[in-house]
Amino acid sequence: MPSLDEFEIIARYFKPLAAKCEGALGLSDDAAALRVGAGRDLIVTADALVEGVHFLPSDPPGLIARKMLRVNLSDLAAKGATPTVYLMTLALGPAVDESWIASFASGLAQDQDEFGVALAGGDTTATPGPTTLSVTAMGEVAQGQALRRNGARAGDGVWVSGNIGDGALGLAAARGESLGVDADAAASLADRYRLPRPRVTLGPRLVGVAHAAMDVSDGLVGDLRHICDASGLGAEIEAARVPLSAAARTVLARAPERLREILTGGDDYEILFTAPASRDGALAVLSTETGIALTRIGTIAAGSGVTVCDAAGGSMDMGQGGYRHFGAPTAR
Amino acid sequence: MPSLDEFEIIARYFKPLAAKCEGALGLSDDAAALRVGAGRDLIVTADALVEGVHFLPSDPPGLIARKMLRVNLSDLAAKGATPTVYLMTLALGPAVDESWIASFASGLAQDQDEFGVALAGGDTTATPGPTTLSVTAMGEVAQGQALRRNGARAGDGVWVSGNIGDGALGLAAARGESLGVDADAAASLADRYRLPRPRVTLGPRLVGVAHAAMDVSDGLVGDLRHICDASGLGAEIEAARVPLSAAARTVLARAPERLREILTGGDDYEILFTAPASRDGALAVLSTETGIALTRIGTIAAGSGVTVCDAAGGSMDMGQGGYRHFGAPTAR
Repeated sequence: MPSLDEFEIIARYFKPLAAKCEGALGLSDDAAALRVGAGRDLIVTADALVEGVHFLPSDPPGLIARKMLRVNLSDLAAKGATPTVYLMTLALGPAVDESWIASFASGLAQDQDEFGVALAGGDTTATPGPTTLSVTAMGEVAQGQALRRNGARAGDGVWVSGNIGDGALGLAAARGESLGVDADAAASLADRYRLPRPRVTLGPRLVGVAHAAMDVSDGLVGDLRHICDASGLGAEIEAARVPLSAAARTVLARAPERLREILTGGDDYEILFTAPASRDGALAVLSTETGIALTRIGTIAAGSGVTVCDAAGGSMDMGQGGYRHFGAPTAR
Repeated sequence: MPSLDEFEIIARYFKPLAAKCEGALGLSDDAAALRVGAGRDLIVTADALVEGVHFLPSDPPGLIARKMLRVNLSDLAAKGATPTVYLMTLALGPAVDESWIASFASGLAQDQDEFGVALAGGDTTATPGPTTLSVTAMGEVAQGQALRRNGARAGDGVWVSGNIGDGALGLAAARGESLGVDADAAASLADRYRLPRPRVTLGPRLVGVAHAAMDVSDGLVGDLRHICDASGLGAEIEAARVPLSAAARTVLARAPERLREILTGGDDYEILFTAPASRDGALAVLSTETGIALTRIGTIAAGSGVTVCDAAGGSMDMGQGGYRHFGAPTAR
C-alpha cells in the first residue's frame, strides 16, 4: 500500500494524464463532461485486468499500463472508431508502492502521446488482494457507421491486417519455451505479446469498406467464429493464406504442429474483417496508404462455424479455438 | 468460481440487463455504440468497489449491486445529468457462485427499472482475490451546463437536499452499535446506509439554478471543503440548520457528541449545492414540485475552508472531515 493517499496519488500521477481532456477538469470533480462530435456516435468498451490472471506481479508497471490501454484501443479501432479518452479504476494491492504507480503512469503518458488519447476520470482505492485494474475506453465514429460482428454477408472475403500468431508464439517465448529461433527473433515475438500494436489508423478507414469487423484477441479461429455466429453464417479459411511474420514462419518450419497455436492462440490485436469482393481495390489502396498488410484468408458463406482448410484442401480440427475466462486462471 | 463460463454468465444474467440499450447489441460485440443527444454533453463517472473494503462478503449481492449503481447515479445527478447507461467490469472471487450472480443481476434489474438506466457493456473475469467491481456510469446534460464543484461564488447560499447524517448513523446501526433509538428507527437508519437514494430527479433541475454542486458521499464538511477549494472560496455553515431525520434527531438528543459524525460521516448521497439568493424562490418551488426538502445551511464567502458554527455562534473543530481511501481499509 502506498504511503501516499488517494488524493495525493491522483494529483501527482494521474492529473497530468488528464491535462488534454478539458472536460476532466484535472480530475478535480466527481465526473467528467465530454462532448461527442456532431453526427458522431460514441463507441465504448471496458476491460478488467487482475494481477496473477492477466498480468504478473513481476511485470513492469509501465508495460501493464500500456497493454491495458492498447487492448482497449484495439477494440475501438476494430469498431471503426477513433479513440478519444479513457477512464480507469485502480484497486491497488499491498505490494504497490509509489514507484510502481510512477512507472504505471509513465507508461500511460507514453501511450497517450502515441495514440492521441487522454485520461478523463476514474477511481483509486486499496485492496488487500491482487491489484485489479479496470479501464473504460471511448472513441467516436460517424453515426450508425460502427463496424460490428454481425454484418458479414455470404460471399464476403475474410481479411486480416498484419500477421497472425506472433501473440501466441510471443507468449511461449515470454515463458521461456524454446521455439527454435534465434534470440533476437524470440525477443521480438515476446515483445509483440507484451505490447500489442492496436490498428488505430486502419480501423476508422475500414468504415464503409468492411461489412463486419472485430479485433483478434482470443484467437483467429474463435474470433472468426464470433463473427459467423453473430452474422448467422459460416466461414472457410485457408491456413496457408494466413499471414505470418518471418519469425513465425521459422518456428512453423521447425515445428509444424504449432500451426494450431498460431490459428487459435490470442493476443494478435490485428483487425479481422469481412468485405465484399467489390472492395478489393479499395483495400489494396488502403493497405498501400497505411503501410499495413491486408490479406484475404477466406470466404464467408451460408452455414455456420469456421472451417480451416490445410494445404491439401482437407479440413483441420480446431477444437474450441478461443480463450474462455473461467477455465483455469493463469497469467497470460 | 462459478461453474458457468464467462459467455454463459453474460448470456444468462447480463444480456437481459442490456435489452433497453440498443447500442449494446445484447452484449454480443466488443464495444457499445451510444448516441448522445444533440446539444447534450456526456457526463461520465467511475468507481471501484472491493470486497472487504467497500462491501462485506456476507452482504446480499443484490444490495451490493444496487448500492454500486446508486452511488454512481448520485454522482451524475449532482452534476445535473440525467443518467442513461452504465458499463461494469466484474472480477469475481472464488466464493462467487451462480446464485450470487443471479442475485447481483436481479438487484441491477430492479434499480434499472427504478432509475431508467440500462447496461451498455463490460467485462467478466475471475480473480483469486476479493471480488472487485468497477462501474462507469453515464448521463446527459445540456451542453456546457454540467454543475461542477468549482462554480461557487461569494454570497451564494450553501444548500443540501434531504437529510444529513443518516448514512453515518446508519453505518453505526448496521454495525450493531446502540444508538438509543427503537429497533424500527435503527433499521431505517441502517437501510439508509445500505441503500442510498440518489437524487436523480432533483439533480437535472438544479441546472441553471445552482452555481456549484456535488453529492455528499465522503461527509458534509469534507465535501463542502472540496467545493470551497475548487472555487477558491470559503464557507460558513450553522450546525443547527443542517437538516436531520427524526431518527437522527433522537440519536443526537441522547448523544450530542455524535454531531461531529453526522457532519463529517459519509454515505448521505444528498446533493450539496450553492446558489445565489436570487434563486431562493426558484428553489422553494423546486422543493415543492419534487417533494424533496431543500435547506439552506450556510453561506459561501471569501477565504478558504469550512467553518462550522455551533448553536452559541462558536466555531467547531471538524478535523480532516472526509474519508480518505488509503487509511486503514475497512468495510464501510
